Amino acid sequence: MKKIKSVNYSDTVITGGLWKEKQKMLRDTTVYAVYDRFKDTGRIDAFKCDWKEGQPNKPHYFWDSDVAKWIEGVAYLTKLKKEPKLEAMADEIIDNIEKNQGEDGYFNIYFTVVAPDKRFSDRDCHELYCAGHLMEAAAAYYEATGKRKLLDAMCRYADYIEKRFKIDKDTAFTTPGHEEIELALVRLYDCTGEKRYLELSEFFIDQRGQKEEALNNWSHGLYNQSHKPVREQFEAEGHAVRAVYLYCGMADIAYKTGDKALKKACERLFDDIISKKMYITGGIGSSSCGEAFTVAYDLSNLLAYTESCAALGLALFANRMLRLDADSRYSDTVERILYNGFLSSVSLDGKSFFYENPLEIIPYLHTRDKSNQNRTMHWPQMQRSEVFSCSCCPPNIVRFIPSIANMMYTDDGKTLYVHQFMQSRTTLSRGNKTLKIEQKTRYPENGRVSITVTGGDTRLAVRIPGWCENYTGDTVKGYAYFDVKDGDTLTFDFSMKVKFIEARPEAVFDCGRYAVMRGPVVYCMESVDNGPCLRDIRIDGGARFKYGKHASLGVPQLTVRAYRRENDEKAPLYSVKHDSLRETEAVLIPYYAFANRGECEMQVWHFVK
Amino acid sequence: MKKIKSVNYSDTVITGGLWKEKQKMLRDTTVYAVYDRFKDTGRIDAFKCDWKEGQPNKPHYFWDSDVAKWIEGVAYLTKLKKEPKLEAMADEIIDNIEKNQGEDGYFNIYFTVVAPDKRFSDRDCHELYCAGHLMEAAAAYYEATGKRKLLDAMCRYADYIEKRFKIDKDTAFTTPGHEEIELALVRLYDCTGEKRYLELSEFFIDQRGQKEEALNNWSHGLYNQSHKPVREQFEAEGHAVRAVYLYCGMADIAYKTGDKALKKACERLFDDIISKKMYITGGIGSSSCGEAFTVAYDLSNLLAYTESCAALGLALFANRMLRLDADSRYSDTVERILYNGFLSSVSLDGKSFFYENPLEIIPYLHTRDKSNQNRTMHWPQMQRSEVFSCSCCPPNIVRFIPSIANMMYTDDGKTLYVHQFMQSRTTLSRGNKTLKIEQKTRYPENGRVSITVTGGDTRLAVRIPGWCENYTGDTVKGYAYFDVKDGDTLTFDFSMKVKFIEARPEAVFDCGRYAVMRGPVVYCMESVDNGPCLRDIRIDGGARFKYGKHASLGVPQLTVRAYRRENDEKAPLYSVKHDSLRETEAVLIPYYAFANRGECEMQVWHFVK
Repeated sequence: MKKIKSVNYSDTVITGGLWKEKQKMLRDTTVYAVYDRFKDTGRIDAFKCDWKEGQPNKPHYFWDSDVAKWIEGVAYLTKLKKEPKLEAMADEIIDNIEKNQGEDGYFNIYFTVVAPDKRFSDRDCHELYCAGHLMEAAAAYYEATGKRKLLDAMCRYADYIEKRFKIDKDTAFTTPGHEEIELALVRLYDCTGEKRYLELSEFFIDQRGQKEEALNNWSHGLYNQSHKPVREQFEAEGHAVRAVYLYCGMADIAYKTGDKALKKACERLFDDIISKKMYITGGIGSSSCGEAFTVAYDLSNLLAYTESCAALGLALFANRMLRLDADSRYSDTVERILYNGFLSSVSLDGKSFFYENPLEIIPYLHTRDKSNQNRTMHWPQMQRSEVFSCSCCPPNIVRFIPSIANMMYTDDGKTLYVHQFMQSRTTLSRGNKTLKIEQKTRYPENGRVSITVTGGDTRLAVRIPGWCENYTGDTVKGYAYFDVKDGDTLTFDFSMKVKFIEARPEAVFDCGRYAVMRGPVVYCMESVDNGPCLRDIRIDGGARFKYGKHASLGVPQLTVRAYRRENDEKAPLYSVKHDSLRETEAVLIPYYAFANRGECEMQVWHFVK
Repeated sequence: MKKIKSVNYSDTVITGGLWKEKQKMLRDTTVYAVYDRFKDTGRIDAFKCDWKEGQPNKPHYFWDSDVAKWIEGVAYLTKLKKEPKLEAMADEIIDNIEKNQGEDGYFNIYFTVVAPDKRFSDRDCHELYCAGHLMEAAAAYYEATGKRKLLDAMCRYADYIEKRFKIDKDTAFTTPGHEEIELALVRLYDCTGEKRYLELSEFFIDQRGQKEEALNNWSHGLYNQSHKPVREQFEAEGHAVRAVYLYCGMADIAYKTGDKALKKACERLFDDIISKKMYITGGIGSSSCGEAFTVAYDLSNLLAYTESCAALGLALFANRMLRLDADSRYSDTVERILYNGFLSSVSLDGKSFFYENPLEIIPYLHTRDKSNQNRTMHWPQMQRSEVFSCSCCPPNIVRFIPSIANMMYTDDGKTLYVHQFMQSRTTLSRGNKTLKIEQKTRYPENGRVSITVTGGDTRLAVRIPGWCENYTGDTVKGYAYFDVKDGDTLTFDFSMKVKFIEARPEAVFDCGRYAVMRGPVVYCMESVDNGPCLRDIRIDGGARFKYGKHASLGVPQLTVRAYRRENDEKAPLYSVKHDSLRETEAVLIPYYAFANRGECEMQVWHFVK
């Protein structure tokens, strides 16, 4: 079997539909909004490395990574369409990086201006994490602009890291407290061909969990996946973003080296997540305590932490797994995240962001501990913010949306795998042949997808979405295979009948309740459309959903017959069950569109009568 | 209208049924078990006041109150039936109190041996709370044994408190951080006839909330009901035990003085609790954060804090309100607490206790934050303990059960109000007449109650339980009135048909779920009877409940047809709703009997099909 390769985002133009809109929003608004907030908060100027004690905007040790992700996003945007203004903004930052890089190659704002004596002494201080994001930015920026300045700087830094960690071994820790550099070094290797970078990534992966090296504030290695050697890790544990970034690196190394034990660990970790620890939106990391995976089936909707970066990271991991195996459990997961837990993280106007993405909001509960300040519960945010003190999510969105076409295809030279459906044109080089693939679709508005291939014959493997029940052909691991000739068009019509979804009985917070999905999109209710006490609404399980457009939000909506109890102000707190209900209409909108009209109740899991 | 008076517990002998069993258990086992644990932990010997820095068992500032409640319980036991051994144990403690009391009348272990310079300097250190419990014990012990030693000592202490707080006003705070002394001073007044004690109670009540006097660790007065003058408090706020103890004191003063504003505040506070902040078990105080009332309808079952002392305190408050108004909303609440949230607090063997009384337990959730130690959630205890570092609940149970007949009757000299039903004989003096009232009943096993009055004619007002739907006579505020002649017997047969109960729609944690009640008793399921995933069980809403006896627990049980989803290990986490269910039988036991067979799932609110 031939090796499956990625098809790069830059070979695809998204020509219509939801993702074209989102890319336009990103290009016109979000990339500037994030920059402006980073400017306001001192993150941009921090790269001048001239901060002094007593001045405002003291740099934090993860600021490098925030801006690095923004630069990476600019690279993708500019690769798709020149953006001289953005490029100039990025260049200025890059100039500062080069100027303030140590002779030895070291670069980190915090450990230059705040704690210059503490270099590589604290495993919890994100130095290697920041380095990784800078490396990713460097590769992306070089590939987009041909400019080598950041790339060269980051190669020097990588060389220095190799020297300190792998050769001299004179650092206070062996592996990063927050993973990221593992996958970034593979990226740097892909960009430069320098095998030492791949080997350094392998080094960090292999060393992880070989000996105890806890973080300052945490009692043991579960939190940052250091509790076991990675090849023995089969259950997703600890900080969810760290976890999936590590798994990305593991998948990269498994792909590059053919390491079977690593591949098996990746498969088992992935299955552990999607079968026990993932919300229906694709969100992961149930608990605010450590922003972490917890135990199997602990999927509280009200307390869901489900950081935007974690959902996005799981998509990156799943997408990497598609190079190891064309199995739709990976691409279905990518899709679940794209249309739900990822897309919810940015407001419809593109200017504000969720760090946490709860699956249910009942505002009054958030004020429960009003008489005290000690040990109050943590509740997820109810409205998006423009910037956070820990602002990892906004720039992650900036780099993710322009490169989303990375998720669409893989190719093994004989078979082109079609994972995601977007109105688009793609150019694929195969030796001396160039295939052109055009998708015509209004997906996910409807399930009709036409795929036309010109420029040659090929085998096509098309993902039949896991939620689709009307496809009748044969599939292998969720893909339907076709031999197509130059100019052929394949047309699919995935039924987007609205469905009630249930969770396994062990997922206690969903018991007795049902989610509503139409195609890949999870729908939610908000009280702004439905009035308060959403949990009192019972959707009529036999009624037909009407699909339409939400008048004020401009997003799709579903309406359906439903019932509620009479609102009797005088009723006692507890009374004998009565079954008289009044009829009403429930209005549902895509989960990704919630919280765009002020603070209100929201729910994903509904009661059905 | 004539003034309604209490009928003292000591005028009633409980001759059979559940409460006779519980009183026997208390007398044979619990009172010794609590003493032994207090001995082990140093609480008993602490009264010698010879602890020195560096020694084990450093006294805590609330230890006096723990033991005082135990002495009070001994008094009630000995009043009902002589217990020389217990009396000797109490006398030894009382001797130490007298011996170590200051010349000035002050007594507090902590502020004698640990922080002798800090007397009355820290509002959060429970000095007046301890004093109050010692005063209650003193009055009870004198009434039971005729021994004055503790009473005299506590009168001296009360005099000293009056001097410092009311006359000299030289203390660092004006009102106690933890209420209790207010109701205790009224008790001391009732026992001694010394009006200054009543006036001192009024003083503390009146001063409360007149000016800001926060506790050390808390930001504002909501926590300990100091946010407003008490006559302006209409919503129950803050630490639930402090709150209901305060409300008891307010009700006492309203009763003694006829203060209408105070009575109105009590009524509104009571209604706020029972209509918005009380669990179906009578538990109150939803949050572990401050052991506090939170916001209306915040009644999480999984996180229910519902301290035993708070339930018991609400019963004391409700029972006091029955002297202000013969209204069954008070006596129904007493009953709800007695058979549920109070009785759950002690194990069936009488040796261990709940501090918290959750309404749902799903053990796996308690381990969710395994990878971290910072900011972990607080989960209620799943099993009862023999003693706690803060061990207020066990001795509160010791004093409550022997005096439970305090809840049965009130009398205004013309009408005898029958609030609770227990197999019993009561003697009631009315001027020169002595009435004898006998209740024959197996309540709450069944709803048949016969009440015979001999020794004279009287008007009887009998509570028709709020849950009872088959009584057809007239009632006034929930009471049926009858003129009975000497020797007459009234017989009632309250239907104990099992019912599904729903909560108001705003009580979100109960939405779509139903509690099962038979008479006053709330039933729960445990996984030890029903297998795991209790939330997956749907009780057949049309099926008949069978009432029987639980084979291993010896308590009543209900069995009923129910359904579950097939247990399919291979099912994905999320799948299309399917409606095929397998039939099963659900076993329910009284809530008060849960957690007597090891750690397992438990739930009070069930799904019904």
